[in-house]
Amino acid sequence: MKKKIRAVQYGVGPIGAAIVRLMREKKSIEIIGAIDTDPAKAGRDLGEVAGAADAPWGVKVTDDAAAMLAESADVVIHSTSTLLPSVMDQLMACLAAESCVVSTCEELAYPFRKYPKLVTQLDAEAKTWGVALIGTGVNPGFVMDKLLITLSAASQQIESARAIRIVDASKRRLPLQKKVGAGMTVEEFRAQVAAGGIKHHGLPESVAMVSDALGLDVDVITESIEPVVARERLTTPFLEVEAGQVAGVFQIARGLAGGEEKIYMELQMYAGATEPGDTAEITGNPTLTLTIPGGTHGDMATAAVVVNCIPAILDAPAGLRTSRDLPMCFLPPGARP
Amino acid sequence: MKKKIRAVQYGVGPIGAAIVRLMREKKSIEIIGAIDTDPAKAGRDLGEVAGAADAPWGVKVTDDAAAMLAESADVVIHSTSTLLPSVMDQLMACLAAESCVVSTCEELAYPFRKYPKLVTQLDAEAKTWGVALIGTGVNPGFVMDKLLITLSAASQQIESARAIRIVDASKRRLPLQKKVGAGMTVEEFRAQVAAGGIKHHGLPESVAMVSDALGLDVDVITESIEPVVARERLTTPFLEVEAGQVAGVFQIARGLAGGEEKIYMELQMYAGATEPGDTAEITGNPTLTLTIPGGTHGDMATAAVVVNCIPAILDAPAGLRTSRDLPMCFLPPGARP
Repeated sequence: MKKKIRAVQYGVGPIGAAIVRLMREKKSIEIIGAIDTDPAKAGRDLGEVAGAADAPWGVKVTDDAAAMLAESADVVIHSTSTLLPSVMDQLMACLAAESCVVSTCEELAYPFRKYPKLVTQLDAEAKTWGVALIGTGVNPGFVMDKLLITLSAASQQIESARAIRIVDASKRRLPLQKKVGAGMTVEEFRAQVAAGGIKHHGLPESVAMVSDALGLDVDVITESIEPVVARERLTTPFLEVEAGQVAGVFQIARGLAGGEEKIYMELQMYAGATEPGDTAEITGNPTLTLTIPGGTHGDMATAAVVVNCIPAILDAPAGLRTSRDLPMCFLPPGARP
Repeated sequence: MKKKIRAVQYGVGPIGAAIVRLMREKKSIEIIGAIDTDPAKAGRDLGEVAGAADAPWGVKVTDDAAAMLAESADVVIHSTSTLLPSVMDQLMACLAAESCVVSTCEELAYPFRKYPKLVTQLDAEAKTWGVALIGTGVNPGFVMDKLLITLSAASQQIESARAIRIVDASKRRLPLQKKVGAGMTVEEFRAQVAAGGIKHHGLPESVAMVSDALGLDVDVITESIEPVVARERLTTPFLEVEAGQVAGVFQIARGLAGGEEKIYMELQMYAGATEPGDTAEITGNPTLTLTIPGGTHGDMATAAVVVNCIPAILDAPAGLRTSRDLPMCFLPPGARP
């Protein structure tokens, strides 16, 4: 019998907490530790920090990343931040510790256009140490790109692709509701957008991945973000939105080839969305549409995609991988190590 | 620049013809020949046999399999028959010629339960020659198994799975309509079922693949097949079905674990089906449902899945592979070899 997969959690925010709770259910995984620099978390039991029903786990959260990484885990699950440049040092340290990495960093999901130099660095470092890394999650990583690419396997010829994701933010946690601007005035919203405080990241990464996979030769990717304004008063478990205030975001990313729109991605994430769901469509021969009525719950599905991806990244060739390359599947809780 | 992928088509029936027409559109593939023992095809131009608009292609169909395979193509696309034992010699000959194989043989899609000895033989032979083989297509291979398995990547916990495929057989070719019994009396239908003449093969293979991928521990797989009886007169482009005659099949396969139903697959394939479509559902945390309204056209999608799979099988480790293992995607027509 093989040994269990030794995993370290890097970052124990809401997503990291969901990830460790899920890893805890998998017989093939042993969580050997966690890293978080928040003084309110460091030094405490990971199960308690993660709000697990079966806490304490006897596994500590530490703020000493170097010491933790020196344990050379088989895999580090990394969920600290959205922007790739801000996590480069963390990722490079994980790779140098000879650990594979699964990261929820949205910009790592498909960084080839925006960060070619960082890609070269990460890929080279991973190959030096014989490990693989991937950025993934539900979006980017699954619902607006991988599903579309999987669907494309049934296509004889493809002209264009669309993905539409509608999320009812009122059913999500407070940080997500704040991230989409719920409860703000339109002016506050626009100021926050300008300051970089409001935005779901990852749409251009999904557009780039889909363009490469489907051969759509996108040369320009555009992005827009607008407020969805509440028409009537809304109450969520966490906050209230008055009529005329912002309920959330309406984002569009487009991929153009020679000026022609080839890829359209639309993300609506607002409190009170009445028809949440995911839709992926390929126009071509044949035209194929796939829908997930109700949609895939963001936090829950991101934790699932990340944990389920662990065996695939351990099996993958060394280097930088993306969800485009790897077969996606479920890691059964009782699966033997 | 790399050389083109040299492909041989083994079997030029309706599916083989659709496959070669599609391969012909891919710049990265060169069709070097085709094998068919039908005297009405052997010796003729492949483009003409396949009904291609741009025929002749200057590529011959031959009935001399050994001579054709001796050309050692990079990949043989094999579509001659449904039952694995009947094509073992053909598959072994392809592997011994050091060619990878993508086959539409339904029983090859996931043969581990029914044919463990043949699996051992095929896997060993493929490894001996350093090539990989796979059985795939739209069903089994994609719509009732791979899509479900891909969806499962967003699952935290899974209790059971369902796949329902409804096909309007009146829009399909005559052999398919005959295969589902359209136009027969119920008595003829039952006699044909008993004689093995009527049945869509592949449901137990999909059940087995999904059970293994989702960890559902299915120990018994059952199958049933019933006629769908026409309530009123139907006319298809190929035949007529009177009220009271059979319009097609209604097949169910179940996967049981310790007597409990864990997997349910239903295939309705009949002339006049009013709501064609594909549905895949995972019950668990969360429960996820995916639908393809209108469904995936069988012949067209099988040709697509097979041709799109070629790069993946050439890249795969030597041995017997399944669509569970490989990332599914599209092969862009203009992709460089």
